[in-house]
Amino acid sequence: MSLPAKSTSPAVILTGDRPTGPLHLGHYVGSLRNRVTYQHDYKQYIMLADSQALTDNMDDTGKVHRNVVEVALDYLAVGIDPTKSTILIQSQIPELAELTFYYLNLVTVARLERNPTVKAEIVLRGFERDIPAGFLTYPASQAADITAFKAALVPVGEDQIPMIEQTNEIVRRFNRIANRDILVECKALVPEIGRLPGIDGKAKMSKSLGNTINLGASAAEITAAVKKVYTDPLHLRVEDPGHLEGNVAFIYLDAFDPDQAALAEMKAHYVRGGLGDSVVKKRLELVLQEMLAPIRARREELAKDRGYIMQVLKDGTAAAREVAARTADEVKAALGLSYF
Amino acid sequence: MSLPAKSTSPAVILTGDRPTGPLHLGHYVGSLRNRVTYQHDYKQYIMLADSQALTDNMDDTGKVHRNVVEVALDYLAVGIDPTKSTILIQSQIPELAELTFYYLNLVTVARLERNPTVKAEIVLRGFERDIPAGFLTYPASQAADITAFKAALVPVGEDQIPMIEQTNEIVRRFNRIANRDILVECKALVPEIGRLPGIDGKAKMSKSLGNTINLGASAAEITAAVKKVYTDPLHLRVEDPGHLEGNVAFIYLDAFDPDQAALAEMKAHYVRGGLGDSVVKKRLELVLQEMLAPIRARREELAKDRGYIMQVLKDGTAAAREVAARTADEVKAALGLSYF
Repeated sequence: MSLPAKSTSPAVILTGDRPTGPLHLGHYVGSLRNRVTYQHDYKQYIMLADSQALTDNMDDTGKVHRNVVEVALDYLAVGIDPTKSTILIQSQIPELAELTFYYLNLVTVARLERNPTVKAEIVLRGFERDIPAGFLTYPASQAADITAFKAALVPVGEDQIPMIEQTNEIVRRFNRIANRDILVECKALVPEIGRLPGIDGKAKMSKSLGNTINLGASAAEITAAVKKVYTDPLHLRVEDPGHLEGNVAFIYLDAFDPDQAALAEMKAHYVRGGLGDSVVKKRLELVLQEMLAPIRARREELAKDRGYIMQVLKDGTAAAREVAARTADEVKAALGLSYF
Repeated sequence: MSLPAKSTSPAVILTGDRPTGPLHLGHYVGSLRNRVTYQHDYKQYIMLADSQALTDNMDDTGKVHRNVVEVALDYLAVGIDPTKSTILIQSQIPELAELTFYYLNLVTVARLERNPTVKAEIVLRGFERDIPAGFLTYPASQAADITAFKAALVPVGEDQIPMIEQTNEIVRRFNRIANRDILVECKALVPEIGRLPGIDGKAKMSKSLGNTINLGASAAEITAAVKKVYTDPLHLRVEDPGHLEGNVAFIYLDAFDPDQAALAEMKAHYVRGGLGDSVVKKRLELVLQEMLAPIRARREELAKDRGYIMQVLKDGTAAAREVAARTADEVKAALGLSYF
């Protein structure tokens, strides 16, 4: 009798978004595009982090609820395939809260307060002394999300690497208590292309700064946004030499223009002078319109069938919950919390 | 057609213990005796707070596991009736962790750090800067336990009143967000008889101080403990006047002697002189032996049938979980976290 060859299961990825607004080009470059690739080679869980979004949105819970479906639409529109990736809603998996609850015992308050990501975000949100406990402790929640699915890879920006370290500290401490390797350590998967600046040239494209181009933007919105794209303030006359550094039009073309050879020529022309911003922006508009038109069309089509979207979310969440529940059972058993 | 008179449901009580050791006379006076009474007039939930016990026992999870059954035995032995009271195991109700998770967004870190009970317990446990996050945040977990069952009354010592205030702050904040009264404010039910001192005269009877008389103590253990009971260090000769203040033998007799008239005479005699400690201790031993003998007998009998104890815990936990799950659903719906 011959046994079938032992299959090696693909590595698990956990990724996701806080559903607080529609996704934009920054998300597309930083994560969505990669997820469409990853889903072929990895077991990918994509989490709609609605519970986590509440940590600083308790005053607008409706926004979080609404955006769960909007973000799911963005996912499917860009080509995330629910038969390949598992899309889940965080709040609908109580085991994630349960794991968070136990992990809170594995991290000290002082350690959370020292977490650079948390520190930076506390400043960003202007909490000062009124930090919600749920915000300070969200690294434990992230650790729960990551470890529930035994994710080995977590795509994050550079600024999130301390969160991965914090997760691995919890993993190691837990495994030491359990006296065996129940939880899995994870690695950050930092994308090659970094953060996309906003159309105004600010370092971060962000809904709250009003400098985004959303994935679902209409043709007219794209046109209007490209008009406002920050270029080179010193490039006053067409014949002047232009600068590429900080020039958002070229940064976007770098990220999205499918004809990178023509782009290289255009850049050279711009730098030596004689190429006006209007030509560059015309190219940018063409590239963005062509890239976003099919996404918008799929998004509009999908939006008509809310039943389908909800079914995708329900199925994905149910599949994810099974996995998370298994981990929660292992964790609780290792802590002596199983009785019946 | 006449309708039956509208029944008013009895007020809900939530109470419980951290299962970190066998219960003793201090628990009996401070809470167990009252619970036996309350169960006739209230809907009483008694929680074995195993998850909470872990917040400062992650280094000895086995202890917590073992003591769940030991404490349940103590409950049944003193007359807590599982057909009248609902005995539940905290960790087996994931909805309690879920509620905790959301309540963490309703309380600031600064507020938790100001909580006098938490502050005192941090000092007591010698955490200094290494406070586990789960310990600092346990008021949110207590709020979850209390509100999950919509408890209106919570029997606690004076020192726990700040925890009740913290719970009510969370309740009010949540109800304001929900825009209706989903959660119920609670009141502390402070017992008339305060804390019982240890046999050594220290203010608190506590396992870690080694000054307890356990409810399951053997006759020989009771005898030995009574011998060590602290009396009046100035009462050197029988004919000397004795002092009642701080005299543990008399404090225990006050708490347990069924013949309070005879006790009053004995006290008078002791104070005017001519009554030796040995006579007082003899009476105390008789009272304790008579009180604890039936408890010990029931405890030993029950301990033989572990299957029954586990069934009591299973049934109580299942019944409690239904109630907690209903509350968690209401809470999540009010936060916009229901989709399907």
